[in-house]
Formats: sequence, structure tokens, C-alpha cells
Amino acid sequence: MRREISCSLGRDALRQFASKNPVFVCVISYTATSEIPGITIAGAAPEMIQYTPPADAEFLYYGRCKCISSVPATPDGKPTPALITRTALRLGNIPFLVVDAGSKVKPSIPLISLDLKPGENIEMHDAMSLSDAERALDHGRTLGKQLAKLSDMVVIGESIPAGTTTALAVLVALGMDAKFKMGSSMPTNPHELKNKVVSTAIKRAGLKAGGVVSPLEAISMFGDPMMPALSGVAEGALSEGAKVMLAGGTQMAVALALLKMRGVSMRKLCVGSTTYIARDRTSDLPGLVKQIAPRVPLLYCGLRLDRSSKPGLRAFAEGFVKEGVGAGGASITAMMGPRKITGKKFLNALEKEYESSIEAAFKGKAGSL
Amino acid sequence: MRREISCSLGRDALRQFASKNPVFVCVISYTATSEIPGITIAGAAPEMIQYTPPADAEFLYYGRCKCISSVPATPDGKPTPALITRTALRLGNIPFLVVDAGSKVKPSIPLISLDLKPGENIEMHDAMSLSDAERALDHGRTLGKQLAKLSDMVVIGESIPAGTTTALAVLVALGMDAKFKMGSSMPTNPHELKNKVVSTAIKRAGLKAGGVVSPLEAISMFGDPMMPALSGVAEGALSEGAKVMLAGGTQMAVALALLKMRGVSMRKLCVGSTTYIARDRTSDLPGLVKQIAPRVPLLYCGLRLDRSSKPGLRAFAEGFVKEGVGAGGASITAMMGPRKITGKKFLNALEKEYESSIEAAFKGKAGSL
Repeated sequence: MRREISCSLGRDALRQFASKNPVFVCVISYTATSEIPGITIAGAAPEMIQYTPPADAEFLYYGRCKCISSVPATPDGKPTPALITRTALRLGNIPFLVVDAGSKVKPSIPLISLDLKPGENIEMHDAMSLSDAERALDHGRTLGKQLAKLSDMVVIGESIPAGTTTALAVLVALGMDAKFKMGSSMPTNPHELKNKVVSTAIKRAGLKAGGVVSPLEAISMFGDPMMPALSGVAEGALSEGAKVMLAGGTQMAVALALLKMRGVSMRKLCVGSTTYIARDRTSDLPGLVKQIAPRVPLLYCGLRLDRSSKPGLRAFAEGFVKEGVGAGGASITAMMGPRKITGKKFLNALEKEYESSIEAAFKGKAGSL
Repeated sequence: MRREISCSLGRDALRQFASKNPVFVCVISYTATSEIPGITIAGAAPEMIQYTPPADAEFLYYGRCKCISSVPATPDGKPTPALITRTALRLGNIPFLVVDAGSKVKPSIPLISLDLKPGENIEMHDAMSLSDAERALDHGRTLGKQLAKLSDMVVIGESIPAGTTTALAVLVALGMDAKFKMGSSMPTNPHELKNKVVSTAIKRAGLKAGGVVSPLEAISMFGDPMMPALSGVAEGALSEGAKVMLAGGTQMAVALALLKMRGVSMRKLCVGSTTYIARDRTSDLPGLVKQIAPRVPLLYCGLRLDRSSKPGLRAFAEGFVKEGVGAGGASITAMMGPRKITGKKFLNALEKEYESSIEAAFKGKAGSL
């Protein structure tokens, strides 16, 4: 087992997530909550944010984007974590599929559609109808069952802007202690703004924080379409006996809560992330996992990007971006999958990927249309 | 190797299509050519034809349809071959996915979209733009590559009404001897009508039969969106080293022609069908396969439906429906896959499926909306 990977519940818990034939699924989505100024930097400019999930999906397949002329980035040019994910999928020869759970812009790829609209801004409206949330869960489950017949481990990542804010709102609505624990793609985590959005949303819905709603109701009111879709894929795969890795940061707490409250067996479930979010001082992923599902291990992968010669890669180690598009989980899977990629080989490949895609794309047109 | 299965190139050629972990893909589509009166009976009434592909797809997943209240059927109540396909997939525990290549109505399932419009009526218009045909092929290939990493054999079926007519038009445009060789879901094969439609289409396009066009151009002018999508999945899977079975009847001749003309290695390719189409006296699937790709084996499966107690199943043996939704190929895969289903077990399960879905659904409302 690779020393680059840590596990909250020890090496034995880690070992069971080695995989012979993993499959990676990326759920892309959108919430208009991301349009609240200051809530996210998942785009080079505010009007670019809606392109980030589809551009991430295209980047996984092609190493470049089609819906934008560059690659997704923050306003100051920190690149998308899809760079890490793509490197992991290629090195590990890991097959992958992209699920569209209400992305506002559609990527030019073969795309698994769950027939969902983008999520509404939760300050003003319910995120989606309960029936849409139910369909997302149902269709996700149907898909997860099929994938479990093809693979011994289903790794599920996401790309949705402002997803930690909607996640916070759902967790608060369910009565959980999640404030000041959610991750952010910014080094200075805008907790106060997130808390304000959540308070406004809960007030708007006429609910008290922790008032009695089912988790799926909470998701339909305060969440986003990624949540039921991703949770459905996980539930379906688990129900067919596959291992499942929720590949992401603090947003995955919502999937954990939903699966737990639905009584799904979590024996073969883990969360897979990067050290950059697992050890982040501005958030508390380990605490969230422990609070909701103490027997679900949190795996996290040290990519040693602080040692990279590339400033855009070092930025991940300096508190920018940190996680997303299942970067940490995909890296763990590449290291623990049949090809057992070493950390050194990974960093080399990542730097090459950075040169061929990011450095090329960033020559003067970061994130432009 | 099961004695129910025959192979045009002998038992050795058959044996190589045993599979450890097959995956089934059904490509659903639509062509307005199906609106020409008398060209197809793939629907209980003309206005129902557009619902047949999505209803087939829903039937595979749920054993019932959501977009119609009954199940797809001919005007006199012969049921969809999806009945056979579903039985095969369940018995064989074969995972499956549905690809939407321009279906007019969308099924309520997780659906892999290739972003294609329904095909036009080829008597009046080109079926699709060349760029759409190219995208279908590209996206299909991208998908096929991923599936090949998950599975040692990709089995690809289709559901499109009037697909043998558009197939005839493409084959004629490419200069092949295909007239009077195409299959039909009717016992009295309307060859003359098909020939007339094809002549009209070729005249409309200002082309001579066999005039020089590339196969993809011929498909864009005279075919339907299923063709490049299905061929793309096959090409992508073959390129990654998987075995591929084109699961269907005479329509598969177009995929064979396209793959051959694109220089794709066909060493691991076969056509899988039912005896009802392979031995049909009103068409010539063996002759078409031999003409286009003499080294590609044609596998066909005897389901002994003539012995069934169910009139709707006996109808398949009496020249109705015969094939579709990859019924023959899925059956072969169930029999040659890891579970090695026997013919007897298959027929028993098929009759049970018939009772629980078809007999229940047909109580007074066959094919109604």
C-alpha cells in the first residue's frame, strides 16, 4: 500500500479499497447559488463559472476544452483540479464516464443525462422540486447498479461551483454541526458569506435550522442536483456489492448523510480526498466524516505538489483549489489500482500534463470564451 | 459451447466470442423515414412509432414502459423483441447502457446522450449533416474506448424504426448488392416499397447508386443517426482490444461497411442475431455479411420459440418481428457468458417475463399512450 495515502481509520481500513478494475464517474452540475458575488472562484470571471463543470468534463476526455478556448481556472490563473484527475485516470488506465446532473452548459462528450435542470439559487428558491431530486436519486441508482456489474469499485467525483455552500445549507437544515467546517477553493475561506447565504435560504423556506425534514427534502430545498445524483450512483453500486469511494471534499458529507439516513450499508464506502483538503485548517473534513459516519474511512493522498517546479501546481499546496473533479480520489485509485502508480511517477506525469495542456492553453487567454 | 448457437464460419470462430464480463449497449434513434406509410410496423399505430425506441429502453431497465402505458408492439399485438433482450440481460447478469442517438422521445432512464437530432426522411432531405454524423462517430468511439476498459466484449444492439430502409439506401449508395436482401419486422417484406424510397432518396440527392461518396457521407445523406453512433462505439471498443458483437439483423451491414472502409481491424468483430433473421427467406443477412466482410462470423441463436405456449412468442418464429433491440446477440451473450445459460432455462425465463410484463400490459390497452 502506498505511503502517499493516509487513512483516518488505519492501514487495514485503507487496504480494503485496493481495486482490480475501478471505474471513475464525474457528476457535473450547476447551482445558481454560484452567482452570489464572492461565493466561488471556480471560473476566471463570474460569467465563466457556468462553463467550469462542462469544461472540466471535456478536459478529462481530451486534455483540452471545447466549450471554452482555455481551461477552467480561478481569476488569478490557478488551474482546475481536473488536471490531477486526468493524470490519475490516464496513468491508472481507469475508465470513466461523466454524468450530467443539471449542468447549465453541456460538454461535447458522450454524456450520461439524468434529465435534470440546473439548481436554483437557494437564497431565493428551492434548489429543485422534490420529484426532480427523487428522479436524480432513482436514475443515479439505476446507473450505479450497472457500473457495479462492470467494476469492483466505483469512484465518484463532482464538479459544481459553490457546492460547499449548498452542502452547508443541507447539513445545517438537517441539524448538523457544519458551520466553519466546509472547504473552499480560496485560501481565505468565506465562512461568513456562506453562513449568511444559508441563513437566508433557511429563513426563505420558513424552516428552522435542524427543523424536521427528510434528507432528500433538505437537498431539494437547500442543495443542488449533484447531490441526489451522486448519492444515487453510490447507493446503486453499494447495493450490488461494489466498493464505493466518494471522491471529493466536504461536499461529500451530504452524500454520507443521505446514504446513512436511507439505511444504506456503508461497510464498503469510503471518502477519498487530497491532503490539501483533509488537512486544511480553514475547514474540517475529518470532523464532518466522523460526525456523520464514524466508521467510514477518510482516505487522503499527499501529492507533494509543494515540490513541483510548476507554480500552478504548487498553488494547490498553498491553499488554492485544493480538491475537485474527484482529484484526490482518482489519485488514490491510480495508486491503489492494478497499476499501483508511485507518487514520483505521478508528479512527473502531472507536470508533463501541466506543460502540454495548461501552459499551452494559458498563453495569453486564460479562461476566455 | 451451446448447441443453440450457430456460426457461419464454424465452431472455432464461434468459440472466441465467449466472454468473461460482457457489456450490452442499446443505441436508440429515430428516422422520419419511418413515417412513410407501410414502411414499418414497429408500433401499434403510426403515431406510436416514435415511442418504440424509448419504450424499448425503459422496458430493458424496468420490465415496463414509462413513456407509454403498455409495451411496444405491432398493430396486431406482436410484442417488442426487447422482451428477449431483457430476459437475456437478466439471466446473464449482463450490465447494459442505453445510448441516445437522436431518439425523438426521451426515455426516463439514465441515458447516454450524443447530442443528436432525429434523422430526417431520406426521401425529402439528407438524414443529417455530415458534421452530426462525424460527431456521432467521434462520441461513439470515445464511449466505446471507455467500455473496452471495463469489459472484454461490447455487444451493441439498436432500436430504430424503419432502420432497414435507411440501411438499404446507404448500401445501395455505396454500390452494394443489397436490394431484396434486407430484413423486415413483417412476414411479407415490403421490398418494393423500400426500393422505391431508396430510389427517390438517391434521385433527390442527385447521386447515382454506387456513385462515389465516403461511407460517412452516404450515412449522412441516406442513413440515420443510429449508424454512426453504433459504428463509433464498435470502432472505439475494437481499438482498445475488446471483442465486439454487432447485435442485430441486416442493418448491421452498414456498420460492417463503415468499419471496413475506415480500415478498422475486424479480427475481433462478429455479428450476433437470431435464427429468425439469419434463416429468413425474405432477406439475406448471411449474404450481406459475406459480401461486405467475409471473415466476420455471423453468430445466430435458435430460441425455439415455436415450442412456446405463448402466442406472442411463437409469432417471432412465424416471421413477425424476428430481431431488434439486440435480442439475438444478447441471447448469445447470455448463453456464452460467465453464466452459460441453457436454451431450456432461457425459454422458461422468457415465458415468465412474457407473463409478468406482456400479458399484464396487454390487458386491453396494447400500445396506447
